[in-house]
Amino acid sequence: MQKYSILFVCLSICASLFAQKNKKPATTAQTPSPVVAYNPEDAANLRKIYDEALTNGQSYAHLRFLCKNIGARLSASPQALQAVEWGRDVMKKMGFDTVYLQPCYVPQWVRGGEEGAIVSSNKNMAASVETFALGGSIPTPLSGIKAEAVEVQDFNELMALGEAKVKGKIVFFNRPMNPKLINTFNAYGGCVSQRISGASEASQLGAAAVLVRSMTLLHDEHPHTGSVHYDSLSPKIPAAAISTQSADELSKKLKADPRLEFLLRLSCQTLPDVLSYNVIGELKGSEFPKEYIVVGGHLDSWDKGEGAHDDGAGIVQSMEVLRLFKDLNIRPKHTLRAVLFMNEENGARGAIRYADEAAKNKEKHIFALESDRGGFTPRGFSLDMDSVLIAKIQAWKPLLEPYGLHDIAKGGSGVDIGPLKKQNVPLAGYIPDPQRYFDYHHADTDVFEAVNQRELELGGAGMAALIYLIDKYWVK
Amino acid sequence: MQKYSILFVCLSICASLFAQKNKKPATTAQTPSPVVAYNPEDAANLRKIYDEALTNGQSYAHLRFLCKNIGARLSASPQALQAVEWGRDVMKKMGFDTVYLQPCYVPQWVRGGEEGAIVSSNKNMAASVETFALGGSIPTPLSGIKAEAVEVQDFNELMALGEAKVKGKIVFFNRPMNPKLINTFNAYGGCVSQRISGASEASQLGAAAVLVRSMTLLHDEHPHTGSVHYDSLSPKIPAAAISTQSADELSKKLKADPRLEFLLRLSCQTLPDVLSYNVIGELKGSEFPKEYIVVGGHLDSWDKGEGAHDDGAGIVQSMEVLRLFKDLNIRPKHTLRAVLFMNEENGARGAIRYADEAAKNKEKHIFALESDRGGFTPRGFSLDMDSVLIAKIQAWKPLLEPYGLHDIAKGGSGVDIGPLKKQNVPLAGYIPDPQRYFDYHHADTDVFEAVNQRELELGGAGMAALIYLIDKYWVK
Repeated sequence: MQKYSILFVCLSICASLFAQKNKKPATTAQTPSPVVAYNPEDAANLRKIYDEALTNGQSYAHLRFLCKNIGARLSASPQALQAVEWGRDVMKKMGFDTVYLQPCYVPQWVRGGEEGAIVSSNKNMAASVETFALGGSIPTPLSGIKAEAVEVQDFNELMALGEAKVKGKIVFFNRPMNPKLINTFNAYGGCVSQRISGASEASQLGAAAVLVRSMTLLHDEHPHTGSVHYDSLSPKIPAAAISTQSADELSKKLKADPRLEFLLRLSCQTLPDVLSYNVIGELKGSEFPKEYIVVGGHLDSWDKGEGAHDDGAGIVQSMEVLRLFKDLNIRPKHTLRAVLFMNEENGARGAIRYADEAAKNKEKHIFALESDRGGFTPRGFSLDMDSVLIAKIQAWKPLLEPYGLHDIAKGGSGVDIGPLKKQNVPLAGYIPDPQRYFDYHHADTDVFEAVNQRELELGGAGMAALIYLIDKYWVK
Repeated sequence: MQKYSILFVCLSICASLFAQKNKKPATTAQTPSPVVAYNPEDAANLRKIYDEALTNGQSYAHLRFLCKNIGARLSASPQALQAVEWGRDVMKKMGFDTVYLQPCYVPQWVRGGEEGAIVSSNKNMAASVETFALGGSIPTPLSGIKAEAVEVQDFNELMALGEAKVKGKIVFFNRPMNPKLINTFNAYGGCVSQRISGASEASQLGAAAVLVRSMTLLHDEHPHTGSVHYDSLSPKIPAAAISTQSADELSKKLKADPRLEFLLRLSCQTLPDVLSYNVIGELKGSEFPKEYIVVGGHLDSWDKGEGAHDDGAGIVQSMEVLRLFKDLNIRPKHTLRAVLFMNEENGARGAIRYADEAAKNKEKHIFALESDRGGFTPRGFSLDMDSVLIAKIQAWKPLLEPYGLHDIAKGGSGVDIGPLKKQNVPLAGYIPDPQRYFDYHHADTDVFEAVNQRELELGGAGMAALIYLIDKYWVK
């Protein structure tokens, strides 16, 4: 780990050079120089955190239970409530100072028993295509919607077709994720609008339903679900995902036979909202018990797979952060809160409720960290805060880089802690390696076996390491 | 990618500070300042390399063929020769300027049909234990070796037991890999002596055979093989690996019943050496055709699994580096050589032969890069060269970090290019993420399905990126 010392000396020298050059009293008064931003004891404490996580880490065992004994846990499902009980029990057994539920009503969307599609054309025999209703979709009539399909890559193409060519048809959004982008989340960001807004955009032109290419970089047979958002300007139409393989086949068939017919059947429906809960565990701060540091993920998942990477990983890591503090007798100065948010996938009601409650109770949150990008090998943190605070965290790089946490830079945080931004809370997202995340995201394949124990436990340790430094050195 | 520019400015300033402080004429004359070590065109060319690898990369398809149509390919096996033919064909089809075989004799160790063990004690029924002979082991007699087992953690414990307690017994080396080490290769390094030298150490005290705990951080049922080395001071005794699960069970049983008996049967043998080959492909240099840059991995594997991560990945990536240059019309200044080395696993005869031939023919090698740490997500490069050259490569970090190549520091390279060190060739190892490598290493589980396409292709692109910069800017 010697190798980082030269870099650190460089950074320190440069930091002082910059500090001298850019003397702004407000900034320098607020933030101590990065050069003295930590001391040797911290390196030893981080080492203890990692030692504990890598020898007695509990994240993997908890994730196994969550995935195998509860499984998929869509908001408002019985499994989601089981997960609430489970989360409370786990944190109580961990011996946190306070463990409680924070109630919130969540949407109750259910997939129903039947969904699927049949493609038929003059040239081919009819072929069935596996389809997953998008979360929140309305159903088709019982007999399904039978219509010609029209393929588009994006909303511009859709608009160019116009009502004449879209009315009564099933619009097939087939824009693939861009494989050239190194960060797959950017590729997702470049595509997801067709899943979220495709139905409303197509409905404005009179479409009967939409089919969306799955958001994955794999070419395989698994449909990936995810939420659809209906705007209030257009009638709701059914929306479903098909696999990348099916999408490519359909595209080929459509080129051969543009009159091809697609029969879509979805039996999903939205029932009345249901009472559910965020689950919260606390370790009381020794110096500032009324100031909070949040670390969290989301307890709900889609109803496919086991919600292992999304976001079982983030849940077990968040609880593990507090357990590491507790079992290593590291008493935090501020109150640490592990928050298992409910309903990230289709409503973020838990996130909104948590922020509302914090505002109402005038709770001072000094920092919030979310883990919702899977349980892969650690890469760093994405920081949504002002540049002075970012520089402060970057000054800890020599402590964090030996653990593979190199990528510490400005960026987004997470959906669950997002609503705290209005309260000017500095937000951060834990960043594991992104290459495989969308292989599993919202699909049948997001199961416990797709998570590696060391990668998961290293993630929890890395989050604890950051929280340790924040708790000790944060300037409010 | 903006975020790296500050770091680069820092490094540049510091580099000049250091350069001013440590003015050694020889050094400064030899190496231009890192500040001008590349230009904007390079970033664009690296982007092209990655674009091609991520949209038309061939590594994954080649790896599939190697794993599924040839499979495990222990040196001297028919499959190893098939792999030689395959490697030559692939590089010919890639259209390299020269493709040829470099002959070398390799050891012919064969596992034989039967291997296994039975544990029996007074307290328990006899239980069979899956064992893999270590590569190079001598066989047991046909009837096996039946003896009491004695467990040790290391050679000190073995010595402390002395001849009285070891003679005639089966020594069971049960030192686990240290899970606290972040880099699993360091944990492997701390354990592997018991596999390599355990037999000879135990034999000196009269042991009948050795059993070795598998070198993996998983607790599972798969034995991991690997080579044993017999020294000339002691009789050869049979050596075999058992899984970490079996090792823990055996250890428990031994504590309950130290008189427990172990029956070991191995039918492996060493036959006469066989002619085999390194496979070499070249792109001729435009300015310095007689100066060589090597990029390689090893074509042979153990006879278990499919040799996917070890080292099918390195092989397909090495060929891909040259293909990327060729198909992108990047004409190298120096001659680039992809070398598929034979016999890394049990003799390194290909490595030795290559270096001998280079010396004999007075070939000037300016750089060699090996990929033999699996096809996982990229992390960086490990550099075995003097500090001036290391600083030069580190000055390229702003170009490489956007692609996840952060970890660029002094370290070892690889077994295959190692013998070139005597000729003062700067050596480097490609470093993918190390967390999962020993899950698969030398085991049945090292199969194509354990490799992720993007991670593999990103690795080949990263290697090509480094070779591009070396070819363009290296100071010889």
